[in-house]
Amino acid sequence: MTGMLQPGSLSGKTIIITGGGTGLGRSMGKYFLELGANLVITSRKKEVLEKAAKELSDETKGKVLPVACDVRKYEEIENVIKSAEAEFGQVHGVVNNAAGNFISPTERLSHRAFDIVVDIVLKGTYYTTLAAGKNWIAKNQPGTFLNIVTTYAWTGSGFVVPSACGKAGVLALTRSLAVEWAKYNIRSNAIAPGPFPTEGAWSRLLPGELVKKFDPAQRVPLKRVGEHQELANLAAYLISDFSAYVNGEVITIDGGEWLRNGGEFSHLEMIPDEMWDMLEKTRGK
Amino acid sequence: MTGMLQPGSLSGKTIIITGGGTGLGRSMGKYFLELGANLVITSRKKEVLEKAAKELSDETKGKVLPVACDVRKYEEIENVIKSAEAEFGQVHGVVNNAAGNFISPTERLSHRAFDIVVDIVLKGTYYTTLAAGKNWIAKNQPGTFLNIVTTYAWTGSGFVVPSACGKAGVLALTRSLAVEWAKYNIRSNAIAPGPFPTEGAWSRLLPGELVKKFDPAQRVPLKRVGEHQELANLAAYLISDFSAYVNGEVITIDGGEWLRNGGEFSHLEMIPDEMWDMLEKTRGK
Amino acid sequence: MTGMLQPGSLSGKTIIITGGGTGLGRSMGKYFLELGANLVITSRKKEVLEKAAKELSDETKGKVLPVACDVRKYEEIENVIKSAEAEFGQVHGVVNNAAGNFISPTERLSHRAFDIVVDIVLKGTYYTTLAAGKNWIAKNQPGTFLNIVTTYAWTGSGFVVPSACGKAGVLALTRSLAVEWAKYNIRSNAIAPGPFPTEGAWSRLLPGELVKKFDPAQRVPLKRVGEHQELANLAAYLISDFSAYVNGEVITIDGGEWLRNGGEFSHLEMIPDEMWDMLEKTRGK
Amino acid sequence: MTGMLQPGSLSGKTIIITGGGTGLGRSMGKYFLELGANLVITSRKKEVLEKAAKELSDETKGKVLPVACDVRKYEEIENVIKSAEAEFGQVHGVVNNAAGNFISPTERLSHRAFDIVVDIVLKGTYYTTLAAGKNWIAKNQPGTFLNIVTTYAWTGSGFVVPSACGKAGVLALTRSLAVEWAKYNIRSNAIAPGPFPTEGAWSRLLPGELVKKFDPAQRVPLKRVGEHQELANLAAYLISDFSAYVNGEVITIDGGEWLRNGGEFSHLEMIPDEMWDMLEKTRGK
Repeated sequence: MTGMLQPGSLSGKTIIITGGGTGLGRSMGKYFLELGANLVITSRKKEVLEKAAKELSDETKGKVLPVACDVRKYEEIENVIKSAEAEFGQVHGVVNNAAGNFISPTERLSHRAFDIVVDIVLKGTYYTTLAAGKNWIAKNQPGTFLNIVTTYAWTGSGFVVPSACGKAGVLALTRSLAVEWAKYNIRSNAIAPGPFPTEGAWSRLLPGELVKKFDPAQRVPLKRVGEHQELANLAAYLISDFSAYVNGEVITIDGGEWLRNGGEFSHLEMIPDEMWDMLEKTRGK
Repeated sequence: MTGMLQPGSLSGKTIIITGGGTGLGRSMGKYFLELGANLVITSRKKEVLEKAAKELSDETKGKVLPVACDVRKYEEIENVIKSAEAEFGQVHGVVNNAAGNFISPTERLSHRAFDIVVDIVLKGTYYTTLAAGKNWIAKNQPGTFLNIVTTYAWTGSGFVVPSACGKAGVLALTRSLAVEWAKYNIRSNAIAPGPFPTEGAWSRLLPGELVKKFDPAQRVPLKRVGEHQELANLAAYLISDFSAYVNGEVITIDGGEWLRNGGEFSHLEMIPDEMWDMLEKTRGK
Repeated sequence: MTGMLQPGSLSGKTIIITGGGTGLGRSMGKYFLELGANLVITSRKKEVLEKAAKELSDETKGKVLPVACDVRKYEEIENVIKSAEAEFGQVHGVVNNAAGNFISPTERLSHRAFDIVVDIVLKGTYYTTLAAGKNWIAKNQPGTFLNIVTTYAWTGSGFVVPSACGKAGVLALTRSLAVEWAKYNIRSNAIAPGPFPTEGAWSRLLPGELVKKFDPAQRVPLKRVGEHQELANLAAYLISDFSAYVNGEVITIDGGEWLRNGGEFSHLEMIPDEMWDMLEKTRGK
Repeated sequence: MTGMLQPGSLSGKTIIITGGGTGLGRSMGKYFLELGANLVITSRKKEVLEKAAKELSDETKGKVLPVACDVRKYEEIENVIKSAEAEFGQVHGVVNNAAGNFISPTERLSHRAFDIVVDIVLKGTYYTTLAAGKNWIAKNQPGTFLNIVTTYAWTGSGFVVPSACGKAGVLALTRSLAVEWAKYNIRSNAIAPGPFPTEGAWSRLLPGELVKKFDPAQRVPLKRVGEHQELANLAAYLISDFSAYVNGEVITIDGGEWLRNGGEFSHLEMIPDEMWDMLEKTRGK
């Protein structure tokens, strides 16, 4: 898969991607850079972030600003925006991509563990959205939000319930502000990706044997997982002005997975209790 | 409108209603009592709660246990369940009804104000759900959840965005656990009510002139608001065993409002800035 | 499961059920009779219909009028309404329940076979709805529609595609007229049942071995199929005045099946080609 | 708005667009030609079609084959496919765009008028889909369907009820075959456009004064109607291989209209009876 947009489609645009140092966030960021954007990436882990920024810049010859930030701390997000403006003058788009997740039977989660996921996914997203939106409105600047959700934001799913709650909230945020903030020329959209494997994330969620046993490709009607460039193409479209009339929409890119199977992780009911015990030990939770 | 279920339909059942001392929570509770249930109501305000408990008991000759509780404090919810079991032996159903809301342009909300609503609506609901669910699973008892959401849980809505985020999360919780916890014989459903006026709530949300200007009845295809007994009938059905095969469902009771108008409060864009200024002062925010 | 509504809840009401001589249509009709309604049942097969009418009347002591009718012929539906009015004075509710279905890979269906299902399901329903609605509007009478759809009306499903197209159309009809005809005091709602086995229907759809191999109960989180009385209870609620504020709604009663599995029959991809060959022969298609 | 895809993105692809001689169909076709596709356009009106084909070819230097066809006649669709293969060798994509619509109170429509719309919209689409799909499956060729629906396919809408029924059916077809035919490497997606004015169509639907009174731009949060190139960009993405992992999806491009307003034409309840009388005369129905 190659890049789909006309060269220079994002020239002169500055895009912030939360959680942009690794995984899908990084893949989207790389393509935005190739299309001419300036990139701001955030993450709690400063070293990972700075290494990623350097690599991305080397690979694309684009400008990348890494700013360490915990999205659960409003002031830190405000700092990201200020730093982005100091470096690039104006922010044009924000990709709310930072997330957390546990795969676990819900009754094994403490209410604190539940909070951790909801706080990163939902609070982190509305904090970022409030900070960026207030700034755009105050300065009378247009802007575009792109929020990364999941297909179980609307079906729900067993075994990832805190994430389902958080992502559903993010989807409601997307649709609500698409209507309310349209008058400020601020658009809001979302993408619901199916299985796009990333180093680390998948093996953390489904260690060892489990990834093989529950091979996500087999659940997808097209019988394959997604390629990062496929997601990056869609994300670039939605963050660009080419999608100027798309507003309040969530676009699913999952090969048909959710229509075929319902809630994305509900089939993990096949994992026996002893294996959940083991998984918990592995994670050191 | 009169009660619809066979007399005694909830005999011997103990139902907890959060936020059960006033408004729709109280109306549901009263009907559950009439059908033979034992009732446990919670609220932060102990005096309001105890007065309501006495009145409900007097009106229906049923048993009502008031337990003060802030749903954002997990231990207090655990205490509600223990108190309910001490009084009535076993809990059969939980209605997650406690909620909070601000009507406001989103850019006028601080991130703290946003948190307040999300914490009551979403955290409060999953705390209650975790506490009750873990208890049922540990004791191998069946149970039924009924969660009160809104139609803008799926469309989103301007001017009530924290509530939209929270309620969307609650809907995802409902659908997720309907699947995951079905094996424990725990069902989860939701109701999305349209306009059912309650003393206090509506005038707090839309004071004075505004209620007249934005008369909710005019937005409903059936040209009227709902009666509390209509909601109570539906709630009693969903909390009773008559709905034993309904699981993971959200039932809308709004006269067709959302299909006609989209997001329930998005039309408040017609309120001018000066009026929002005034409203904020009125509330002493 | 027993009947849930107060005795006499449908006293004095006349309800038409298309396809009311067998299966779920008959079960709903029986319960409506027990609640005091007059019943009009239709079907193409006059003998089956008259036998059912006699049995239903004997079992419940209620009044049942059988009128033979092909729902694809507008004049025959007009005749049903006239006959119902001649017998009972006024029609209060219509249940659009008549349906047809083939389970088959779509590429094995001729366009004529596709038409047969769509014509019964969708045309039959809007013909009946137009005839009944025009009559109510002309006479300034209120009325209630209850349309029986499926969960794959919104997810779609492989292997029952003509039915999916038709039922989706019926759902759109339900929601459209809920809004448009509310001003005439005509409500429209729908039920989406999961697996409720009926004599004949299931074995026709999945003959012999297949019913065992694809045991529908195993796909339902609650691990059982539905009981007819459970559906009848919900249908009686929606056709009665107790649901007067429910309008434009589709209520799913499937134990959580669709949330867990997606499109209801898409898993039939596991049937090999040779078995489809055999099934076609069995049916004499 | 300019074209968004890399030059040559559709080189060597042959795309059939039903109803491709005018309006949005033509705009999509023109952009496909600019991207290097061969185009086949169909319509019942041979002269309009041939004129359009010549103009499109002149404007883009691309190859355009006009084939007269009534989508309600299966044999004529088979002929389109054969003609396309004779001219270009192989068909790669089909855009189901042909449609019909009346704006009218439903009770003023005869069942025959209702049939006309459903037959063009739904039967026409599944006939085309069956013919093209069977051909691809028989020849073991991959293929892509793109179906043009409406936002009221899922909300329903008053005053365009036959169209709502038909389009909802098309959406179910899209989602069903996305799953069922994925194994043949055939993808199915849809677009739900909001208001994109076309010569003729809008003034036919809302003549004279009405277009002004019910200015569609005012209902859109972004306060404008769409540009044809915006739709063409999205359509080109979905018909191209860049969207290879998007399957079973309907993408809304309406500026947020449906989230703000519900059913797209339900507000026409404001039109008084006398005006409907006049409109009917104008149309010579």
